[in-house]
Amino acid sequence: MGHELGDFCDVPDAAALLAAGETWGYPLMLKARTLAYDGRGNAVVRSAAEAESAFSSLSRGGAVPLYAERWAEFVSELAVMVARARDGTVVTYPLTVTEQRDSMCHTVVAPAPVAASVSEQAIAVARKAISSLWGAGIFGVELFHMKDGSVVLTEIAPRPHNSGHYTMDACVTEQHEMHLRCVAGLPLGDTSMKVAAAAMYNVIGSADGKLSTTLAAVDAALAMPCAALHWYGKAPPKPRRKMAHVNLVGGSRHEVAIALRKLEAIADAANGVGGAVAPSPPADEAPVVSIIM
Amino acid sequence: MGHELGDFCDVPDAAALLAAGETWGYPLMLKARTLAYDGRGNAVVRSAAEAESAFSSLSRGGAVPLYAERWAEFVSELAVMVARARDGTVVTYPLTVTEQRDSMCHTVVAPAPVAASVSEQAIAVARKAISSLWGAGIFGVELFHMKDGSVVLTEIAPRPHNSGHYTMDACVTEQHEMHLRCVAGLPLGDTSMKVAAAAMYNVIGSADGKLSTTLAAVDAALAMPCAALHWYGKAPPKPRRKMAHVNLVGGSRHEVAIALRKLEAIADAANGVGGAVAPSPPADEAPVVSIIM
Repeated sequence: MGHELGDFCDVPDAAALLAAGETWGYPLMLKARTLAYDGRGNAVVRSAAEAESAFSSLSRGGAVPLYAERWAEFVSELAVMVARARDGTVVTYPLTVTEQRDSMCHTVVAPAPVAASVSEQAIAVARKAISSLWGAGIFGVELFHMKDGSVVLTEIAPRPHNSGHYTMDACVTEQHEMHLRCVAGLPLGDTSMKVAAAAMYNVIGSADGKLSTTLAAVDAALAMPCAALHWYGKAPPKPRRKMAHVNLVGGSRHEVAIALRKLEAIADAANGVGGAVAPSPPADEAPVVSIIM
Repeated sequence: MGHELGDFCDVPDAAALLAAGETWGYPLMLKARTLAYDGRGNAVVRSAAEAESAFSSLSRGGAVPLYAERWAEFVSELAVMVARARDGTVVTYPLTVTEQRDSMCHTVVAPAPVAASVSEQAIAVARKAISSLWGAGIFGVELFHMKDGSVVLTEIAPRPHNSGHYTMDACVTEQHEMHLRCVAGLPLGDTSMKVAAAAMYNVIGSADGKLSTTLAAVDAALAMPCAALHWYGKAPPKPRRKMAHVNLVGGSRHEVAIALRKLEAIADAANGVGGAVAPSPPADEAPVVSIIM
């Protein structure tokens, strides 16, 4: 059974959440309608017994409007940047595959190493979604690649986006310039990649709160060929805060994958994370899945 | 007879200039030792009869120290960006060929379409020159490609340079970041090109002083694939003022050459310059050739 955009419902109270659980089964995703990002504002409801407390906590006693989503069994997460001109013309960047850690974007790989049919499907869905909206600018569109090979739209971010950071070093027109071209009514830029392959690694403020731990990935990137560091100038680093990102470019997917693995290994070692194995997400969080209504 | 760096002499007075003319013949180049750029501070002395007035005019009655250079018969102008770390390590970017118009940098093409032997020779000369200096940072090194196949060092600019603008879209580490890495003692970056070919087109304030004329190249670039515009925010545009540059990137030299020719044709038409034929330099100016002492 494929997923549809209709697989969500309003949750004005705990009873509505229980009704959703009756329909779809557990686990299911409970989400805030506003200001949710990087896993904040989301909760996994694992059973009917958790419904009451999950509703109360996430809605802050009913103050924050919530909705529920059917659980989605995806095999990977995809994203594509889409630009929309003032005249409605829509252009797409290459499809990427994204990896989340602890509900935050960890890495992005472009182009996505998926079958052409999946890539075409995902880009078509993203194009259709953005074509149906109003306004001009750049949009980050996130999708699930489902077990059955289908793709499901999961989130639209109406702005330059984490999954578009790679464009800064890999594409002819990078996402921020593209956004300005869109809103200023200038000709749309060139979304094509000027390298064979690219990856983006997010530098997140380390859990121990120490600058030196966060800088491990930065120092590694500065010493690597093929790497470009984008430091945001936020100080001091805080745990779970996006501090910088590193773009890796190369002549082949293999070359970029090796560089990415090396960078991850160095950063993981500094952060006390074992090898390249991603940690399990905490029980109260799940991958970011939000639909902007 | 090859050119040597020794083919210049101090010109404290008009008599010294006449003596230089006796030795090397005319024309010869008369230059200010300081604050010369974009053809300013340079004069071509075509005969002994011009010596007195040329000295008086360029030296401002003896106030500005001058030197003279033997005339150099070059076939093309080359340039290479060289980075020097605080520990003296030197790395080079690819060799470029530059074209001047009216003594100002007009276009830069990377990598230079010259024989490997010429490229190796030019890069070796540039590397040797910068290795002999002190200080850390990025240097623009300009050379003549002479009729006899040799290369002659002509200018060293101790800073990010016009001939390095292409690195902003074509190289893994662009020249400004490289300069900061050098002076901050960070690891040197990656000078390799991430595209097969690139070109830079300087947008110069038009002779008619009208913004619309200057913007012809800008508008053309914004509508071209493969093009990235870098607008400097100088307002208003003035004749002979560098207002912006356009970088073109592509998968082949041919592709980039076609894009560059197209951009030139549009800008030339707006500026009333015939076709792609470069105008002759004014009689009182010649290609920029300065040696920083």
